[in-house]
Amino acid sequence: MKLNTFQQKLNQESPYDFKELKAIFLNCTLKKSPEISHTEGLIQMSQAIMEANGVNTEIIRPVDHQIAFGVYPDMSTKGWKKDDWPPIQKKIMNADILVLGTPIWLGEKSSIASMAIERLYGFSGEMNDKGQYAYYGKVGGCLVTGNEDGVKHCAMNVLYSLQHLGYTIPPQADAGWIGEAGPGPSYLDKDSGGPGNEFTNRNTTFMTWNLMHLAMMLKKQGIPAYGNQRTAWDSRAVKDHPNPEYR
Amino acid sequence: MKLNTFQQKLNQESPYDFKELKAIFLNCTLKKSPEISHTEGLIQMSQAIMEANGVNTEIIRPVDHQIAFGVYPDMSTKGWKKDDWPPIQKKIMNADILVLGTPIWLGEKSSIASMAIERLYGFSGEMNDKGQYAYYGKVGGCLVTGNEDGVKHCAMNVLYSLQHLGYTIPPQADAGWIGEAGPGPSYLDKDSGGPGNEFTNRNTTFMTWNLMHLAMMLKKQGIPAYGNQRTAWDSRAVKDHPNPEYR
Amino acid sequence: MKLNTFQQKLNQESPYDFKELKAIFLNCTLKKSPEISHTEGLIQMSQAIMEANGVNTEIIRPVDHQIAFGVYPDMSTKGWKKDDWPPIQKKIMNADILVLGTPIWLGEKSSIASMAIERLYGFSGEMNDKGQYAYYGKVGGCLVTGNEDGVKHCAMNVLYSLQHLGYTIPPQADAGWIGEAGPGPSYLDKDSGGPGNEFTNRNTTFMTWNLMHLAMMLKKQGIPAYGNQRTAWDSRAVKDHPNPEYR
Amino acid sequence: MKLNTFQQKLNQESPYDFKELKAIFLNCTLKKSPEISHTEGLIQMSQAIMEANGVNTEIIRPVDHQIAFGVYPDMSTKGWKKDDWPPIQKKIMNADILVLGTPIWLGEKSSIASMAIERLYGFSGEMNDKGQYAYYGKVGGCLVTGNEDGVKHCAMNVLYSLQHLGYTIPPQADAGWIGEAGPGPSYLDKDSGGPGNEFTNRNTTFMTWNLMHLAMMLKKQGIPAYGNQRTAWDSRAVKDHPNPEYR
Repeated sequence: MKLNTFQQKLNQESPYDFKELKAIFLNCTLKKSPEISHTEGLIQMSQAIMEANGVNTEIIRPVDHQIAFGVYPDMSTKGWKKDDWPPIQKKIMNADILVLGTPIWLGEKSSIASMAIERLYGFSGEMNDKGQYAYYGKVGGCLVTGNEDGVKHCAMNVLYSLQHLGYTIPPQADAGWIGEAGPGPSYLDKDSGGPGNEFTNRNTTFMTWNLMHLAMMLKKQGIPAYGNQRTAWDSRAVKDHPNPEYR
Repeated sequence: MKLNTFQQKLNQESPYDFKELKAIFLNCTLKKSPEISHTEGLIQMSQAIMEANGVNTEIIRPVDHQIAFGVYPDMSTKGWKKDDWPPIQKKIMNADILVLGTPIWLGEKSSIASMAIERLYGFSGEMNDKGQYAYYGKVGGCLVTGNEDGVKHCAMNVLYSLQHLGYTIPPQADAGWIGEAGPGPSYLDKDSGGPGNEFTNRNTTFMTWNLMHLAMMLKKQGIPAYGNQRTAWDSRAVKDHPNPEYR
Repeated sequence: MKLNTFQQKLNQESPYDFKELKAIFLNCTLKKSPEISHTEGLIQMSQAIMEANGVNTEIIRPVDHQIAFGVYPDMSTKGWKKDDWPPIQKKIMNADILVLGTPIWLGEKSSIASMAIERLYGFSGEMNDKGQYAYYGKVGGCLVTGNEDGVKHCAMNVLYSLQHLGYTIPPQADAGWIGEAGPGPSYLDKDSGGPGNEFTNRNTTFMTWNLMHLAMMLKKQGIPAYGNQRTAWDSRAVKDHPNPEYR
Repeated sequence: MKLNTFQQKLNQESPYDFKELKAIFLNCTLKKSPEISHTEGLIQMSQAIMEANGVNTEIIRPVDHQIAFGVYPDMSTKGWKKDDWPPIQKKIMNADILVLGTPIWLGEKSSIASMAIERLYGFSGEMNDKGQYAYYGKVGGCLVTGNEDGVKHCAMNVLYSLQHLGYTIPPQADAGWIGEAGPGPSYLDKDSGGPGNEFTNRNTTFMTWNLMHLAMMLKKQGIPAYGNQRTAWDSRAVKDHPNPEYR
């Protein structure tokens, strides 16, 4: 991926140091490698910006793995013969940034994206050493491609799920591309207009920088552990509840 | 609103200073004052926590005002006789935290909530002095009440809209209450179980503290203005675009 | 609106008689008359097909009326000075077909669309003379325009609400138009490509014919009143409940 | 499943004959057999009503099968070793009624439900002998269970997808059950209140009867093949487009 002149200039002149950061991109395409994934085309733009800034990145394509359905950390203990998710989860837990990329089918994120979210959810019982949910301190974003309609619909669900798990969502943490109403060329197809779309490129650039800025801020300071510790809430001595005035 | 013993303890023993912060709660109920708003009942819990921590707060109930429909900053310049939104917008721009509260009707946020988002969107052309969108540096949350179903559906749209405008979304920045499937008592109704719901109270508490923590972090540091400046992007010299490898 | 050659041919050679049918189009634009509404541009295509087939149609633009917020049939009895909704509701109850048209703002249907649905919901306590919900026997559709993204997101909520109230949803009962990702021309703008979009035109045509076919079928036969009568359910003698096997 | 007294009475006294009808229930649980599926608990209520009325029914649990990801009719021709979907699709095409049942995870339908919809979509290029989409003439419904929140959010997407493919959606074609806000017992758990929930039971009953009524109506008459034939639209002689007045 060759970035545009301005994206390159930003990388070259940046006074920021993001070398400590790690990012995982989950490409939730339905297509197995080596088939071309248009979503990966867009992911590579964000990845290229991060790499140029020293971020350690990896793109994972879940459809290439044998991942079990379910909401437990390791489904091989629940009757599934094989479950490739636990090592993926480990990489996600070691990373500061998670970007979920998904194609659109019938206006909706892919089933693989849903499966990935279910598996992330399966780890929501884990806490960090301060008693906060284990995803606290990480930042999340979303990239969407399709040839019809549904970028915002998909992104709102993905970003909601991530913040619900404990991710922080930076400003404008999503970007996407679709063509005009109706079937048509996909992102990487010749003459799709995708890679030349100003709006998509600007949003992808801003998302990527905001992910790096917030990830760095949270890597240094964390989410202060006060008022949001699950362990403290659960073990509190008196379990009364608030009294609204109107009752 | 009398908070529970643990919520009070957190307030009293807090080592954090949030006195510089301002918060606006938009109560998007369909009911005019002084009719009881169940959504306001839940809002008051979050407000009470913020107030105890020195945050300057205000609850605004848009339905009490004469707000015009539209997506321009001041609709009184667009053929509407009266438009009470501009002073509300001013308060929102002066605040560090915005929490949108909404009831659920037919599984959806209220029309007042949609109108408020449209009006916020009407200001999305404004930039701060660094050329970032004017909402950068603020944090957003969402509170939802209903007696049937739809908390997450409403929250995902509200939080998505806020981040799209430039708000940062802290971890777990939403909370809500609904009763069991089907019509039933509303939040403040006697025996609703609302104010005693552990899940709702924990989520509201965590949301509120996370909003204060992130708002303070961003008040001190802002979102670093690099890679995300609309003015710089628009005025760039060379307007070429990225080149994906697969093409 | 001059229909295309094939749309005209369908009208001229049709063996079906739809003269008994009435249709209401709710144009939920945020723009007051006489400002141009792009959504109305698309609505007029569906209307022109219906009119050519003898259907009695009317387009109502709620933003031109002073409609109160709320979920009661007549809000002027609930503290609002004026409420123009009841006569609109009367027209909707007299019609066999309801098509809700909406623009997209920030990926979502308009606040006027939400308000209209809340008002329709306010009448959901009404039953017909067989004890079915009053909307039974009517059919609903949805038209959406925007210049960015969100047709399916808006349509899924609108159609869901209509079926929940008792409307029947014919096959492919929605159509819409958006341009390529990002801001751009609106439907009726010169060179938007909107009125020339094959996908939008085909979907609008199919939606319109399916609405007429199903409306006629239901006008003749109704939804058989058995197993779905609210009054019968509520007044049943023995109020026990099912016993699942697994318990 | 032992139905309640009134549900049984309706079955016994029904003057309607539905013996020609076939129904498929897709139980999109993430749990493999023989693990208890709460969603199946609710599905069985609808199934019991249909069976008592002579409808030929079958519950299919996709998670028990090895179904490939993708949007082509048979993914075993696209690089997947095994694909159990084609015989399931055949049963769905032979049925008049399709009810998709899904659990809720993080407010969303299951990944299996998304996968099933993607596979149904993979057959949307097929037409019947009149040139209509092959799903025309069938009716669709949706059942949802969870212990938190999200029935309507899931149902609106499922029903939208079905109507988009060509299914007709009868009035009130969804039902569901959730407990009070927050984690709690699931539908079939002791003391969940699920099977005793009036609202859920009424909605499930009405949905089921409306599916049978509309399926019978469409089995007899079909969706009239005029104005909605894909083949006729595609092969039309003159491919001009409508002319809006405002341009």
